[in-house]
Amino acid sequence: MHPPSIQKLINLFSKFPSIGPKTAARFVFYLLKMEEKEIKELVNAISEMKEKVRLCDSCFKPFEDELNKNKLCEICKDPRRNKAIICLVENETDLISIEKTKKYQGLYFILGGNVSALRKADFKKLRTEELLQKIKNSNPPQEIIIALNPTIDGEATILYLERKLKPFNLKITRLGRGLPVGGEMEYADQETLASALENRR
Amino acid sequence: MHPPSIQKLINLFSKFPSIGPKTAARFVFYLLKMEEKEIKELVNAISEMKEKVRLCDSCFKPFEDELNKNKLCEICKDPRRNKAIICLVENETDLISIEKTKKYQGLYFILGGNVSALRKADFKKLRTEELLQKIKNSNPPQEIIIALNPTIDGEATILYLERKLKPFNLKITRLGRGLPVGGEMEYADQETLASALENRR
Amino acid sequence: MHPPSIQKLINLFSKFPSIGPKTAARFVFYLLKMEEKEIKELVNAISEMKEKVRLCDSCFKPFEDELNKNKLCEICKDPRRNKAIICLVENETDLISIEKTKKYQGLYFILGGNVSALRKADFKKLRTEELLQKIKNSNPPQEIIIALNPTIDGEATILYLERKLKPFNLKITRLGRGLPVGGEMEYADQETLASALENRR
Amino acid sequence: MHPPSIQKLINLFSKFPSIGPKTAARFVFYLLKMEEKEIKELVNAISEMKEKVRLCDSCFKPFEDELNKNKLCEICKDPRRNKAIICLVENETDLISIEKTKKYQGLYFILGGNVSALRKADFKKLRTEELLQKIKNSNPPQEIIIALNPTIDGEATILYLERKLKPFNLKITRLGRGLPVGGEMEYADQETLASALENRR
Repeated sequence: MHPPSIQKLINLFSKFPSIGPKTAARFVFYLLKMEEKEIKELVNAISEMKEKVRLCDSCFKPFEDELNKNKLCEICKDPRRNKAIICLVENETDLISIEKTKKYQGLYFILGGNVSALRKADFKKLRTEELLQKIKNSNPPQEIIIALNPTIDGEATILYLERKLKPFNLKITRLGRGLPVGGEMEYADQETLASALENRR
Repeated sequence: MHPPSIQKLINLFSKFPSIGPKTAARFVFYLLKMEEKEIKELVNAISEMKEKVRLCDSCFKPFEDELNKNKLCEICKDPRRNKAIICLVENETDLISIEKTKKYQGLYFILGGNVSALRKADFKKLRTEELLQKIKNSNPPQEIIIALNPTIDGEATILYLERKLKPFNLKITRLGRGLPVGGEMEYADQETLASALENRR
Repeated sequence: MHPPSIQKLINLFSKFPSIGPKTAARFVFYLLKMEEKEIKELVNAISEMKEKVRLCDSCFKPFEDELNKNKLCEICKDPRRNKAIICLVENETDLISIEKTKKYQGLYFILGGNVSALRKADFKKLRTEELLQKIKNSNPPQEIIIALNPTIDGEATILYLERKLKPFNLKITRLGRGLPVGGEMEYADQETLASALENRR
Repeated sequence: MHPPSIQKLINLFSKFPSIGPKTAARFVFYLLKMEEKEIKELVNAISEMKEKVRLCDSCFKPFEDELNKNKLCEICKDPRRNKAIICLVENETDLISIEKTKKYQGLYFILGGNVSALRKADFKKLRTEELLQKIKNSNPPQEIIIALNPTIDGEATILYLERKLKPFNLKITRLGRGLPVGGEMEYADQETLASALENRR
């Protein structure tokens, strides 16, 4: 129904996370209305981002390094950060969510891979080997916080990682459960409620 | 539009919690279709419940006491319960939610009143005086858990109760915050995430 | 977990349309807080409604008839109503929805039965025989409007009724399809959109 | 919090229709993981689309015209199309929704502009002048279908267009209202229900 060059772009945008063909079509019509100058700005921003950004050798956080001189991101290089704690997160977004709380002073490690549709093959997409190398090579951390979502997929990943980390004899912790801000006891499951009681303060 | 006796019943059902006039009308048409015998069963069940059930003198939980011999509910009478902890809850439903976790062995106190639309006048509906009397008269408990929802209204009530309880020099705790089962870090607010990190285990 | 007389009432309220056990429990706690006088008012209103209200012999609409003198409801008795058109509706609520539009001057016929979970056995719950008798006995109407929901269940019922009504050689119509007020073309299915185009005015 | 080149791209994607900063960030991390080859494919697809696609001189539908030889899209050029009817639509998506019904054989006119947040200034974004020119210059059409959403904004636009089109003495129609497929009478407003009755068939 659409002209081929429009359909092709719809197909490409449909692969973007959480985007279906209807929203993808709206993107294309939005681009169609954009002026040449704005299109250039977008295309250049994409290229520039791909050129400038690299992943930190230690935690895999994306950071900008135009001259290709640095191997570590600004968090891993920061001398005020507590190197004895490593917080494992699924992706960049979760890392930023934790940073925004301003309550965490340790380091991170981005596991990558899509935990949210977990099959055996998905475990391979996690940076498990890189994590184990990091623990072996450096001064071993005192604590690993596995900061994954308390969903079914997240729990499966937590169990997998706990098994892999067990031989190193580290303190391994998970995020505390409880009622979130705005939550209501009436709709909470028993496990959440039990944790909320246990973690009372 | 409805005959007056139907409209009257719709009005009465519309006062039931969370019921609007459309659902109330559906209730009436449901009753209309019920046989005489079933109507009697319902009406009798209402009367019977009102006759048999009384509120516990100590915690205000409803319990059955046909012969009007008991002043205390089965929880308050249970010798295995830890009388040194009192858990304040908004209503019977929250008490039952906590009981179902099977992790709590202390006593309860039902505050009553509708915390979910809190105005100054609403504080009077809470059983604050009864709570303070209870603390004064009996062996003072060691801990009061204020198990109210971490909503705006719940927080206001928690602050109010903490102020009232302060003079007694008791340990006062709140439910722990964190990610609920099934929750996702990406959608959690900063306070919830900070608590989840702090309560890690 | 609940005392038996409370649990019994929860079970009875759970049978009310669209009510689950949690809401049913809230109803019971609401009743528990009601004063004796209010409880009486509710119980009396239920009994009174059952005594006063009867179903119209012609259209099965509930109407009040304390002295048991009338066989017909106020709509069927109204001489200004156009007796040549009969509008079939699922229940009382749909009848009232149509009356509120003030655009319909014909008569009704309440099919009863729950169309919303249609199995073969459900067809028997519809007042099909009563409908066919009514058409045979009286001056035959010129038009039958089958005003059922355009859902899968509704469509199945419409087809069933059309088959039953076919021998009478009446004009049989269905509600027009189109975009509802507030609807958006983007989310409309093709059939709805095609009808909206066809019914343009 | 993000490196500047990532933040810039997040800002640009946040301007895409219906995209907030969280989804925009996910887009950027998705691009970060894409291989160089795939990025090139996307960037090329954008440029190619902008080069090949132009808007039809008559109806403003986007169509592909690599050699820049055509002024009219495939619909406007199609001799089987009924030129006596013009269907006004807000955007390309609505045009395609109508085409998919396969029930419409007339022409279109894309009004453009965002009707969904209508202020006086928004009327200027509609191609009203182009529409009036088209009607004046060509063989006047017999019917104009204003196929806009029956929302508040859509209604305001319909009234505006009807006023503008009045001097031309054409037949002007709107989409028919009624219950959509899957809709339920109980939740329909009175206007929708009245239309559904009126459009019965």
